[in-house]
Formats: sequence, structure tokens, C-alpha cells
Amino acid sequence: MISNSIVYIVLAASILALAFAFIFYKQMMKQDEGTDLMKKIAAHVRKGAMAYLKQQYKVVIIVFIVLAAVFGVMAYFKLQNGIVWFAFLTGGFFSGLAGFFGMKTATYASARTANAARKSLNSGLKVAFRSGAVMGLVVVGLALLDVSVWFLVLRCTKLLELVGANADMVTITTTMLTFGMGASTQALFARVGGGIYTKAADVGADLVGKTEYNIPEDDPRNPATIADNVGDNVGDVAGMGADLYESYAGSILATMALGASAFATAATQAAGEQLQMKAVIAPMLIAAMGVLLSLIGIFLVRTKENAGMKQLLGALSRGTNTAAILIAVATFGIMYFLFGNPTNIEELKAIYGGDTDQQKFTEFYFNNMWWLTSLSVVVGLLAGVIIGKATEYYTSQSYKPTQKVAESSKTGPATVIISGLGLGMLSTAIPVVTVGVAIVLAYLCANGFDLNFEAASLQRGLYGIGIAAVGMLSTLGITLATDAYGPIADNAGGNAEMSGLEPEVRKRTDALDALGNTTAATGKGFAIGSAALTALALLASYVEEIKIALHRVAMVAADGSAEITKGVRWTVEQIQDANLISFMDAYNVNLMNPIVLVGIFIGAMMAFVFCGMTMNAVGRAAQKMVEEVRRQFSTIKGILEGKAEPDYERCVAISTKGAQREMLVPSILAILVPILTGVILGVPGVLGLLIGGLSTGFVLAVFMANSGGAWDNAKKYVEEGNFGGKGSDNHKATVVGDTVGDPFKDTSGPSLNILIKLMSMVSIVMAGLTATVHLL
Amino acid sequence: MISNSIVYIVLAASILALAFAFIFYKQMMKQDEGTDLMKKIAAHVRKGAMAYLKQQYKVVIIVFIVLAAVFGVMAYFKLQNGIVWFAFLTGGFFSGLAGFFGMKTATYASARTANAARKSLNSGLKVAFRSGAVMGLVVVGLALLDVSVWFLVLRCTKLLELVGANADMVTITTTMLTFGMGASTQALFARVGGGIYTKAADVGADLVGKTEYNIPEDDPRNPATIADNVGDNVGDVAGMGADLYESYAGSILATMALGASAFATAATQAAGEQLQMKAVIAPMLIAAMGVLLSLIGIFLVRTKENAGMKQLLGALSRGTNTAAILIAVATFGIMYFLFGNPTNIEELKAIYGGDTDQQKFTEFYFNNMWWLTSLSVVVGLLAGVIIGKATEYYTSQSYKPTQKVAESSKTGPATVIISGLGLGMLSTAIPVVTVGVAIVLAYLCANGFDLNFEAASLQRGLYGIGIAAVGMLSTLGITLATDAYGPIADNAGGNAEMSGLEPEVRKRTDALDALGNTTAATGKGFAIGSAALTALALLASYVEEIKIALHRVAMVAADGSAEITKGVRWTVEQIQDANLISFMDAYNVNLMNPIVLVGIFIGAMMAFVFCGMTMNAVGRAAQKMVEEVRRQFSTIKGILEGKAEPDYERCVAISTKGAQREMLVPSILAILVPILTGVILGVPGVLGLLIGGLSTGFVLAVFMANSGGAWDNAKKYVEEGNFGGKGSDNHKATVVGDTVGDPFKDTSGPSLNILIKLMSMVSIVMAGLTATVHLL
Repeated sequence: MISNSIVYIVLAASILALAFAFIFYKQMMKQDEGTDLMKKIAAHVRKGAMAYLKQQYKVVIIVFIVLAAVFGVMAYFKLQNGIVWFAFLTGGFFSGLAGFFGMKTATYASARTANAARKSLNSGLKVAFRSGAVMGLVVVGLALLDVSVWFLVLRCTKLLELVGANADMVTITTTMLTFGMGASTQALFARVGGGIYTKAADVGADLVGKTEYNIPEDDPRNPATIADNVGDNVGDVAGMGADLYESYAGSILATMALGASAFATAATQAAGEQLQMKAVIAPMLIAAMGVLLSLIGIFLVRTKENAGMKQLLGALSRGTNTAAILIAVATFGIMYFLFGNPTNIEELKAIYGGDTDQQKFTEFYFNNMWWLTSLSVVVGLLAGVIIGKATEYYTSQSYKPTQKVAESSKTGPATVIISGLGLGMLSTAIPVVTVGVAIVLAYLCANGFDLNFEAASLQRGLYGIGIAAVGMLSTLGITLATDAYGPIADNAGGNAEMSGLEPEVRKRTDALDALGNTTAATGKGFAIGSAALTALALLASYVEEIKIALHRVAMVAADGSAEITKGVRWTVEQIQDANLISFMDAYNVNLMNPIVLVGIFIGAMMAFVFCGMTMNAVGRAAQKMVEEVRRQFSTIKGILEGKAEPDYERCVAISTKGAQREMLVPSILAILVPILTGVILGVPGVLGLLIGGLSTGFVLAVFMANSGGAWDNAKKYVEEGNFGGKGSDNHKATVVGDTVGDPFKDTSGPSLNILIKLMSMVSIVMAGLTATVHLL
Repeated sequence: MISNSIVYIVLAASILALAFAFIFYKQMMKQDEGTDLMKKIAAHVRKGAMAYLKQQYKVVIIVFIVLAAVFGVMAYFKLQNGIVWFAFLTGGFFSGLAGFFGMKTATYASARTANAARKSLNSGLKVAFRSGAVMGLVVVGLALLDVSVWFLVLRCTKLLELVGANADMVTITTTMLTFGMGASTQALFARVGGGIYTKAADVGADLVGKTEYNIPEDDPRNPATIADNVGDNVGDVAGMGADLYESYAGSILATMALGASAFATAATQAAGEQLQMKAVIAPMLIAAMGVLLSLIGIFLVRTKENAGMKQLLGALSRGTNTAAILIAVATFGIMYFLFGNPTNIEELKAIYGGDTDQQKFTEFYFNNMWWLTSLSVVVGLLAGVIIGKATEYYTSQSYKPTQKVAESSKTGPATVIISGLGLGMLSTAIPVVTVGVAIVLAYLCANGFDLNFEAASLQRGLYGIGIAAVGMLSTLGITLATDAYGPIADNAGGNAEMSGLEPEVRKRTDALDALGNTTAATGKGFAIGSAALTALALLASYVEEIKIALHRVAMVAADGSAEITKGVRWTVEQIQDANLISFMDAYNVNLMNPIVLVGIFIGAMMAFVFCGMTMNAVGRAAQKMVEEVRRQFSTIKGILEGKAEPDYERCVAISTKGAQREMLVPSILAILVPILTGVILGVPGVLGLLIGGLSTGFVLAVFMANSGGAWDNAKKYVEEGNFGGKGSDNHKATVVGDTVGDPFKDTSGPSLNILIKLMSMVSIVMAGLTATVHLL
């Protein structure tokens, strides 16, 4: 018998993850931080990063208080249940905590990595990677902690009464889903604010330092160089962590909700209730197993002394690939444990009823669902791998596309930009087709290749899409480690440069850094792909939430019914009996409804406008940085000769202030537009908005990430001595490309991941309002 | 009584348009072409343009033969009716003819404009504008000719039998719609090929001439300068003309089809048949009236001698605004003539039946539909105006946004690119919201503000959206004239420069040219907006065509039925009785169907991949041009001193060849992807594809057009003496922006208009295949 107790396994896995994170952290802290200068520089960066985070949390806390108050008011008017406001806060708190720990570790690790690299490449890699693993493990640990504890609390305590009088599994899981909005909101500010911070500093530092004064990257004479290094931590560690925390938690929560509703019919009887419970627990168990396998993978990452780039990449790949292969195998085991050898086939046949054919299909389905659903997980895993490889192909200088961008520098910066944009646009094909095929395959596997579009079949298929997302993200513990490793290595390089370490050490940190660029690119592809699948799973949950909201409305209404659309009212019973398809019909959510189409248009527009805002934000903040750096160069005597110290703090303050100011408007827009769309256009408009934002946002995000990555590496390719090498006109042309690419790949592109998930989350939380108030 | 004879009015209007085009052409030809040098240069450009067009038609003819053969085979297998292949050819032929006439006129007009400008600004304006009007009038004339003649032929001859045994109005109009694919295909090659041609030449000429050798634009020493001027004609005249020919014809044909099906229920009885006929004729009549009013507008365009920029713009605005206001008024007249004072209300009430409320609504609706539907037309007109104004705001150097892009040149080319991209992305908000509001308003006006989503109500609303598109395009005769005027003025400037005319004349042609840039920008916004509305109207027609295809399949099937989706078969009667909504239900075209979602993803991706391909095409072709220009500069002695003549022909040949080679792959992709999507994903996938392509393509097109326009004018703003003026580093930074903007605004962006319309057209024509063969 499956019971709540199995969830303690999940809890245990989360504590395991946190424990190892703590061990890795302690191990890292034991390392020597190097020379006094190294320590001083690291302290500068750490101070700047913490100052920024503190500032950001101040703003975020205000937003959280306001939103929690809104949810409180909604609960008072029965537009939302009484637990969401508090759960929202826990989601935000845990996500913020993960960012805080991850960044703290990263800022302590950079000097230590540089110092370890003085010994050997392997030591450097180990310190950097294990410190990255702290981030990965904290994220999965805290996310699983939040999910499992809430599940246990709601199942075992009186708190459930706050959710609703007769709260069944569907209501519990859908309510839990709304907790995700806390993580989303936190992630939004982390990604947008962090992204603006890091690129304002980077662009500002490059424009004056590299272009006007011809001094190298990370040169201590450049006043913006500390801010630049702070930015890597703020944007690439804390921002990326919050982003993936949200995807991870979101995919698990959404799949639990989808599982609950997919087997809600069966759950009306005892035998089926077990089935439903298993479907809800499955994503948690897969994630828990993923934690274990990620740990194994992390321990596998080591390399020989004097390893080349290839060996380094091999070392990381060994870890991630082993974890991925093992989780694929383990999934079949978990699913067999849960769904293998069903004993209640006859009961289920009775529940699902129908003619002989249907009876036969029911028997076939429940006898085989353990491996069918496992296949969906494998589909998700494979999709993640393919997207990662495609990203690598389009953005690494080892391949043709990026080399061609580098070659186009022969005719100046304009052609570098044109070819980089062209590359990015073309590069959307493989990820989109991959996700498309993955959606169809995950859907068909999980519903037994049933092409009939009936409610039961549809919901099983959607559960498959959700669990594919869980599969893709299950080894996040290690994939995020390879991601967070990048900025640590980057900062280590910066520290080595600024501390004037020996060329040999610089070469080693450069090798570590170059590796980080590749993993960052694949990490970005992965973050986008998982965001797309998660958002897709959230779509179905939105309809589920609308159902619950209508139910709540109808329960308190005088006549016991709720308005669906103009002139159509459903009673409590009708609402209870309705399924996804009947809601689609009732709300006319089809492609001939102009309101749906307008929603899609607005969603597509939102992706562009959001990017435009963040692009301009970087431009404005960088402008201020440029002015400050120019001012320091011209007023502080001896700064260029290295005799006087630049005023680093001022640049840090400028980036901090700029990021804070600039992140507000796009963030608020992302929260307000779904609400307004709901109030004006109603449910069909919201669904259109979400789909439009998701599709366009996904493609736009891939385009921007890959264009940016290709420009970055095209510059590196020229610096490696091709097409004239460093200092040539061609090099200058590629620097222009790189600078344009900075906000592409590190601000606007990644922020889109959040946008598409957050808009879904906001819609889900606001479903009660949309279901009650809508103009059209 | 309304009968076929009223269509002769439309025919007359088309002949009137063609007659005035001929008169304007003759008037222009009577003008003096100026000095010998001017004649020589004009001859060069003319020869190059005609050579290109000839080459392009050669490729296009092959594609047309192949496609016509495919349609023939489809007709043989009863997958399409037996008239489409021929009608397809007429659509393509007329569209090609319009491009040919327009371009011929433009190439004759440029030297004459320059020569007239030697007399006065007003003379120059008149010659250029009247020549542009030739293009405008030829486009509307030929389109109306094609539409009205086919309508008459099908209504009055035995040819109808080829369409189907019992071809009713719905079948006739939907069949006619498929003729539009000929225009689409022609437009695709004209836009893509022309776009690549013009920007390869432009970018190539600028990169070497301006950037490397510092010689001014249109300098006769630059070997690519003739190719650049040819490109203006090929891309901006012929390409733009074909694009709008397609939108114009497409919107009229789609609205006719929507009108026929909106009143198909009523048409089962004699009184209702009249109503249906009127609804079909209305868009034609509005367009015919538009021709007349455009002519009046054209005659209003004149200015005082020594007019400033403001007066010039005022002169053009007077013409277009007068035409727009008059058509709004006239529409109410036409609609009152057709639908005012209905005498058969009682009969209609009987036909539409229902309870008292429904009876009341039927009475209200038919008593008021004349002004309700007129309001939809006004909505379309207003939307066009707002989009035009928004485009002007975002792209003209008279306003803040473009000035800020210019200002960002202070920190180099990278920030120019970043701020231009940011501007373009933000600029999508107003057009998208405008189109969104227009869709909802046009829909609601035309169905009597009925929020019930029932088949009759839906179809009346969709007819409203179609007729809004017709309204937006009704004055195309004059709006296209202002558009085509641009490249003529541009070429006149080039001619003046190359012929070494006096500075005074240069100043006048510069003023004319600057005006052309503004009208070109608003023209692009207009082209995109109308394409979006037209594509939307085509969506509904696609479902109508699927219905006809299924009917055809069921008629020849042994059991008299056709398969809808797996396991669902409909009989001939069921198909006949089905409406838009029942098709949406049967095919599960709702937003929970993963196949629909995958279609949307692929559509969004297509827009980006298509742009990426055309961007890269320009990059590659420009590269070849750069090499050739460099070669000539280094091998032809005395070329830089102006003593030796460059080899213009070779540059023209390179652009021609490059455009021909590069246009094929994206064009074939645009045709193949909808077919493949249909064969694999079936009807839900195709509808998803069309919506995804439409929404993302629309937003992407606005973004690209506005970024490109802003960069162009930011450069002009600096050249006007701001931020350092011509020759400064800031100026060089804006030149980079302008060069990147070239393919944005003149190749990739405008090609998207075609993509979104062509994908709909291909789907419509291939509906028979999709309805029969589909994997999922």
C-alpha cells in the first residue's frame, strides 16, 4: 500500500541534498584563499554581491507583502483559498534562500579556485565544480523540502480545512501549485535585476576599458571590473539558480496536479484512489531519485593533471551523462514499483466502462502504464540532451556557424551583427522541433498511443508531458552544478588577473573559464527547454484551477451556480462533472474565437516588449557606468598607470541602483498583464495569452541566447588567433558583436524563461478573479 | 434587386484605375529626361532592373508550372477542383504584370523626376508621385479585374461545372480564394528575391564605398551604385507592389468567402439568397469605391513652390486623409444601399428561428446591420491610421525614440544596435494592441455586439474582421502611390548625384527622398497590419475549404462519408450541416490539444527561421558584392579619381545571381512546411501553425521594420549635424546600425508579410490533401 509515509523518502532525499551541500561548502571553505591581494579582491566582490542581494531583497519583500495582502483580500472574498498567501511566502523565501546560499558559496569559492589552480588544473576544477554543486544541491534540496513538507502538512493536518471543506487530491495539488508563484516572483526579480546588473557592469566596463583605453578584461585599473565580477555572481549564479528552482518546483507541482486530475475519475473508488495517489507521488519520487544520482554524478567529475579542454569537458560530461542514464533506468524501476502488476484491473474496467474496445484498452493501458509513462520521462531526458547539443553546435567556436560569424568580421561590425542574428534565428529550428516532437511523444506514450481526443486520454497524455519535464529536470542537482561552475571559474580568472598571478595560472583559469562558457550555453538551452515544458504543464493546471475557482464561487452563490460565459451558468454538480474538454467547449477556447486570437497576439507581443524593456534597461544602466568610468579615468590621477586605486564601490553602487530601478517596470508588467487580460478578455483570452507568450517567448529566448553565445565565442575564436587575432580590426568588430550579445544571452533571453512561467503562475493564482470578473 | 450586373460596376472601376494609370504613365513619359548623362544613368538602372525581373520570372515560371501540375494531379484525384490550376496561373500572372508595369514606370520616372526638380520642387513631386500612382492604380486595377471577371465567369458560364456539381455561393467564393495563391507565390519571390537583391547591393556598396573608401552614397565611382539603385526598384517598387496586391486581393476574396458562409443558412431561401449575394458583393463595391476616391486623393496631392518638408508631408497627407475620410462616409452609403430597409425581416426571423429573445435579436440585427457592418470598416481604417502614426513615431528622427538611438552612438556601434533593437521590440506594443482591439471591435460591431459564441454570430463577426481588412486596404490606390513614390524619389536623388547636377537640385531631390523615407516607414506598418488582418480572415476560410474538401471526398467515397479524425466519420449530410464551431469540436482545435500547441510552436519557429535565412542570404550576397567592389577598386586604374568607368554590369549581375540563388530555399520552405504539417499533424496542426506563424510573424515583422527604420533615421539625424555630424565617430556608429537595419526593414521584415499570408493560402489550396491524408 502506498501512503503518505512514502513521501518521507522524498523528504529524506531533500535533506541528503542539503547535507552534501553543507559538506561541500565546508570543504571549500577549508581551502586556502591565496595571497593577501587575492583575498582583498575576493572580499570586494563578495561585499558588492551581498550588498546587491540585500538591496534586491528589500524591493522584493515589499512586492511580496503587497501580493500576499492581495491574496489575503482574495481569500476574504472567496476568490482564493486561505492558505495561498502564506504558501506563496514560503515559496519565495526558499527560492531566495537558495540564491543566497549559492551566491555566498560562489563568492567564497572564486579566490580559492584561483589559488587551487596555482597547484594544478584538477585542483582548480574540483574546487570550482564542488562549489557549483552547492548551488545545485541547495536548489533541489530546498525545492523538494518545500514540496514534500507542504504535501505532508496538507495531508496530515487541519490546515487542509483552509483549502476547502471537501478538499480532495486534485484540490490539494492544485493549491500547492499556487505556491510556485512565490518562487516565480522571486525568480523574476533575481533574473531581471541580476541580468541588468551584470550586463550594465560588463558592457560599461568593456566600452570604456577595452574599446576606448585598450586595457584587457578584468584589469584592476578598470573601475568597473569589480562590478563586472559581482555581476557574474548576481546574474549567473543567483539568477540562474532562482530560474531553475522555479522550473524544478513548477514541473514537479504541475505534474502532481496533472496526475491527480488524470486519475480523478478512478479516485471515486478506493482502488482508484491508490492509483491517483501513486500518480501524484511519482514525480516526487523521480526527483528524489534524481538527487541521489546527481550526487553520484558529482563525485565522478575529476580529471587528470594537465588535462586539455577535451578532457575537462569529458570530465563534466561523464558526471552529467552517467546521472542521466541512471535516472532513465531508475525511472523504469520506480514506475514498476508504483504501477507494475496492477491487481485491480477489473475494478478499473468497471470504473472506466464503455464498450468492449474501451474495456480492452483500459486493460491494456493499466497493465502497461508503468513502462509507457517511463518512456515519457525518457523522452524528456532525451529532449534535454538534444537541445543542449544543438545549443553547443550553434554557439561553440569549434563548429561552423560561430566560425562563420567570426569570418564575417572581415567586413566589419555590421556583418558580424547580421550574421549573428541570422545564426540565432536559424538555431531555433532544432530546439523547437525537438520540443514539438517531445510533446507529441510524451503525450502519446503516456496515454497508450491513443489518438482519440477524449478527456481521460487527454489528461493521461498531459500527465506524460508534465512527467517529461520532470525527467528533463530530474538531474538538476548536477546540471545546475555545471552551470554555476561557470561564473565561479570566470571570477577565478578575474581574481587571478587582478592579483597578477603567474601566466601559467592564468592559462589554467582560462581553460576552466572556457569550459564554463560551453556549459553555460548548454545550461541556457536546458533552462529554456525545461521552462517551455513546465509552462505547458501549467496550462492544463490553469483550467483545473478555474474549475476549482468556479466550484468555490458556485458553493457560496445564492442559487448554487456560477457563470461560465455570458448567459451560461453551471451548477455545482455540472462544475464537478466537467472535464478539460468540456471547459474548452464551454469557454469556446478554440482557434476561431477572436478573443483567443487576440490573447495569442498579446502574448507574442509581451515577449518582445519585455525583451525590449530589459534591453533598454541594460543600455541605460551601462550608459551611466560608462560615464562613471570615464569620469574616474579623467579625474583620478595615476589610475591608468596602476598607481592609484579606482573607486570600485561607486561602480558597484551604480550597477546596484540601476538594476533596482530598471527591474521594476518589466517585472510589474509581467504580473499585471495576465491579470488585466483575465479581467478584460476572460478565460479564453488568458489561455491565448499564455500560449502566445509561451510559443513566441520560447523561440525568442532560444534566438537571443544562441546569438549572444555565438557572438561571445566568435570573439574568442578571433582572439585565439584567427582572422587577424587580438587587436586587429576584425577583433574589434567581434567585440561589438559580443557587447550586443551580452544583454541578449544574459539579460533578455533568460528573463523570458521566467516571463512565460510567471504569466502562467499569475493566471493560476488569479483564476478566482478571472472566473468571476471578466468584461467579454 | 441585386444581381450579377452590379459586379460590372466593379469591373468598370478596375478599368478606370487602369485607364488613369495609363494616362499618368503617358504624362510622365512626355517629360524630358534631362541631360545625356542623366539619360545614360537611367538607362543603366532600367536595363539592370529589367534584366533582374526577366531572370526572376524565369525562376518563377518554373515554380508556377510545377505547382499548377500539382494542382492538376490533385484535381484528378478529386483532392481539389478542376479550375484551381488555371486560376492560380491568372493570379500569378496579374500580380507579376502589376510588378512589371510598376517597375517599368518607376525606372522611367527617376531621371524625369530629377530633371523636373531642376525646375522646382513641386514639379519634381508631381512627376514622382504621379509615377508612384501608376503602381498604385495598376495594382488595384488588375486585382479588381481578376476578382470581378472570375466572379462573373463563374456565375454566368459553364466553367462552374468544373468547380463542382452543385456549386453554391460558398463554393464559388472559396474556390476563388484559392486563386489568391498565385498572387501569394508571385509576391513571395518578388519580396524575398527583390529584398535580397536590393540589400545585397546596398550593404555591399556601403561597406566598401562609405566605410572603407569614404566616398558618399550614390557616388558614380562606386561600382555597386547602379545595382543599389536597381535594387530600390526591384525590392521597394516591384516587391512592395506584389505584397500589397496579394493583401488587397486576398482581403477582398476572403471577405467574399466569409460573407457567403455567414449568410449561407439564410441562403437556403430566396430572400436570404439575396442577402448572401449582397454580403459577397459588399467588399467588391467598397474596393471599387475606394478606387474612385483614391483617384480624387491623387489629384489633391500638390504643393506650393519652395515648400518645406512639412508642406510636402502635408500635401501627401491631404491626399491620403481625404480618400480615407471619404471612403468611411461612402461605406455607410454603400451599406445602406445594400442592407438598409430590409423588407424580409419576417422571413429571416423564420429562418433563424429560436425563442423570443433570438427572434428579437434577429430583427434588431437585420434592421441595423448596414451601419453595424460599416462600423467594422471604419475600425479597419482607423487601425491602419494608428499603426501608421505609431510607425512614424518610432522611426522618425523628429521624435524621441530615434533621437535616443542616435544619442547612443556616443558609446559606439554596440549601443546603437542595442538601443535600436530595444526600440523595435517596444514598438510592437501599439500595433499589436491596435490590431487586437480592431479585431474585437470589428467582430462585435459586425455581429451586433453579440457575446454568445454561436455559429451564426461567429460567422457574422468574422465577416466583420474581413471587411475591416478591406476597409484598411480600400484606398490602396493612393497609399501605395505614396509608397512607390519613395524609391522613385530615392532613385531621382541617385541620378542627380551621379549626373553631377547643381547642389540646389540635389537639395530638392534630398527633400523628396526624405519624404519618401517617412512614407516608406508608414507604408510598411500598413502592409504588416493589413497582412495580419487578411491572414486572420483567411483562417476561417481555411476551415470552410476543409469542409468543401471533405464534402468532395465523401461524395466520391463508397460509403458516402469522410473521415474527420481517427475513428470519426461524417456523412455528406453531416458535413453539409456542420459549421465552423462543429468543425472546431470535431477536429479538437482547442488549446488543450497538444497537436495544436505543437503547430503553434512550429509556426512561431517558422517566422524566425525564415527571417534567419533571408538575413543570412543578404549577408552572403553582400559579401560577394564587397569582394567585387574591392576587386574593381584595386584593379581598375583611375576608378577612384573618376577617370575610369567602373564595371556596373558585373555588380548588377552579382546581385541578380545572388538573389536568385538565395531566394529559392526560404521560398520553398514557406510552401512545403504547411503541406508537411498538414500531412503529419492534420487540421489541428495546420491551424496551430497558421496562428503561430501569424502572431509571431506579425510581431517580429513590426519589430524588424521599426528597428530598421529607426537606425536609418538615427543615421540621418546625426548627418543633420547632431552628435558630431557627418564623418564623426558617432556617425560611423550609426552607419553600422543603418547597415544592420537594411535587411531588417527591407528584406526579412517585409518578407514575413508574405510568409504569413502564403502559409494560409497554401493550407487552403492543400486542404483536400490534409483532409484526406494525415498521420496523427
